[in-house]
Amino acid sequence: MSSAITQVRFAKEAAGLPTADTWQYTHDALPALQEGEIAVKIHYVSVDPAMKGWISKKKSYIEPVELGEVMRGFGVAEVIESRSDFYQVGDFCTGFTGIQTHGIFDSRALRKIDPKLAPLTRFMGGLGMPGFTAYFGLLDIGKPKEGETVVVSSAAGAVGHVVCQIAKLKGCRVVGIAGGPEKCAYLSDELNVDATIDYKQGDIAGQLKAAAPEGIDVYFDAVGGETLDAVLMQMNRHARIIICGAITQYENIENPVGPGNYVQLLTQSCLMQGFTMRDYMHRAKEAFVDLLTWEHEGKIRFREHIVEGIDTFPEAVEMVYQGKNNGKLMIKLVD
Amino acid sequence: MSSAITQVRFAKEAAGLPTADTWQYTHDALPALQEGEIAVKIHYVSVDPAMKGWISKKKSYIEPVELGEVMRGFGVAEVIESRSDFYQVGDFCTGFTGIQTHGIFDSRALRKIDPKLAPLTRFMGGLGMPGFTAYFGLLDIGKPKEGETVVVSSAAGAVGHVVCQIAKLKGCRVVGIAGGPEKCAYLSDELNVDATIDYKQGDIAGQLKAAAPEGIDVYFDAVGGETLDAVLMQMNRHARIIICGAITQYENIENPVGPGNYVQLLTQSCLMQGFTMRDYMHRAKEAFVDLLTWEHEGKIRFREHIVEGIDTFPEAVEMVYQGKNNGKLMIKLVD
Repeated sequence: MSSAITQVRFAKEAAGLPTADTWQYTHDALPALQEGEIAVKIHYVSVDPAMKGWISKKKSYIEPVELGEVMRGFGVAEVIESRSDFYQVGDFCTGFTGIQTHGIFDSRALRKIDPKLAPLTRFMGGLGMPGFTAYFGLLDIGKPKEGETVVVSSAAGAVGHVVCQIAKLKGCRVVGIAGGPEKCAYLSDELNVDATIDYKQGDIAGQLKAAAPEGIDVYFDAVGGETLDAVLMQMNRHARIIICGAITQYENIENPVGPGNYVQLLTQSCLMQGFTMRDYMHRAKEAFVDLLTWEHEGKIRFREHIVEGIDTFPEAVEMVYQGKNNGKLMIKLVD
Repeated sequence: MSSAITQVRFAKEAAGLPTADTWQYTHDALPALQEGEIAVKIHYVSVDPAMKGWISKKKSYIEPVELGEVMRGFGVAEVIESRSDFYQVGDFCTGFTGIQTHGIFDSRALRKIDPKLAPLTRFMGGLGMPGFTAYFGLLDIGKPKEGETVVVSSAAGAVGHVVCQIAKLKGCRVVGIAGGPEKCAYLSDELNVDATIDYKQGDIAGQLKAAAPEGIDVYFDAVGGETLDAVLMQMNRHARIIICGAITQYENIENPVGPGNYVQLLTQSCLMQGFTMRDYMHRAKEAFVDLLTWEHEGKIRFREHIVEGIDTFPEAVEMVYQGKNNGKLMIKLVD
């Protein structure tokens, strides 16, 4: 097999957020398969806020990507050659494919998926990591009860828009925080959230008071910073904060600013719990089935933002950090 | 009844920590009892780090003490007159007696105690709020398992010295953080903790690495600030942080500094949980019985720091914030 591969490599450390200079494109031939391996053609790769963390040396849940390595990323791929009993040519799989057009993997490195269940893009979005993250973060940590107020940051994003819809399904009052009137309109009109906050309008604390007059019971946090501090001051007793990200802090990831109002955790007996999906991968099928059923029933609509071609990767990463994506951002690599 | 009362009132707001100017002493006669009330003579009052919070207007778990009001405080008191069926003269009780020599209370406002079970001072310390706080915070939130590493800040303090001993009882490796060689010697020699950190020596992160080479599983936090940030960087996966106080932040309580490394909660899937004893008052007897039994068995030794006379109150408050107390600080009001 001698397909040409295009790979995106981590080329240069970025003090702040990644830029075009952070990446280098290389082209190669696909190496020969060893026993137990598969060769895949990657159809979609996911662009995630976690990427800054993956190229940072700060202690994390996963080894950093080293300079010169292919950039880490989730993908959905099709098996084009197999020397594994687990895979046949034409099978599909997902996992850390890396940001590349093709790859060779140990057959156990990726997870087989059934493309008859849903469009391939779903496995990157609502029926993949972002959907599972929303599901377990909200339900397992947030434990929202009917009638409680759930506040969601990055509410129009890959995870947030799923959180909003699950919280509505559970009978909660949902307040979505997003940047700009279009995203807020999407939250109100398409997700039926009860109130929206446009953080670009400022005075997040004031907007929160108006949107959550009875206080906040659950906060799904992807942003940190001023929003987290404002929420902390308006938590009800025994409220739960799910730490899923801290996008406001990634630009200065070596010197992040913490929530000064964290002492409210004490005075209000609140929980702040972080997690990553590796805590829940053994239960991923629970989320998959529920989310798929909710989609079939019309109770959840997943939003996907698809750009085309591996060349768009640097720009796509910038889009994520600038909040320019609407829903789950992914790159389509094949026609 | 016309006993003379001395009362300590909140007289002047303090920008930073309370000083002598914060308080005013007043003298009065004890008013006549109404039906259902008791008059008490207060034997001991407790001096607590929470006091700065009680006189601050920042949203908290309890209404702030207003200017001119008698300062809030726990006490142990003896009933000297009763117009309640629940109390007889000579009974003892505890609760928010306020910082005063005598007081009139609704009979339901205080909790009866049995002075035959333990010395009166215990009900202010190891068999009172500080002991209960240690017990529930460590066991119910921290859930330490045998062999895990438990780090305790303010380890020689009212709560911390009990936390250290319970953690040792549970078979944990215990690292105590305190200020100065004497307190550290107390932790090593009398509480048998496995390692100590003198925060006054600086480089808390480096000292922590040496003291907890296998990482930290449980952190009992009474201080916040640099120590909390250092611990966050050394948490093991699924570690638990109990937020019991934030004494480093009380001096600037309106503008506290949060833990920048809180994002480690996400990467390490950790929990940060605050609480106050009102979450557990319905279970206080569980803690009381266990702690009392452990004391009888010689497994726990409670340390009490007793100063004498209500005149010492302003100085005693300063002692607490300067870490000059050894164990539970209380003021003896009667001979």
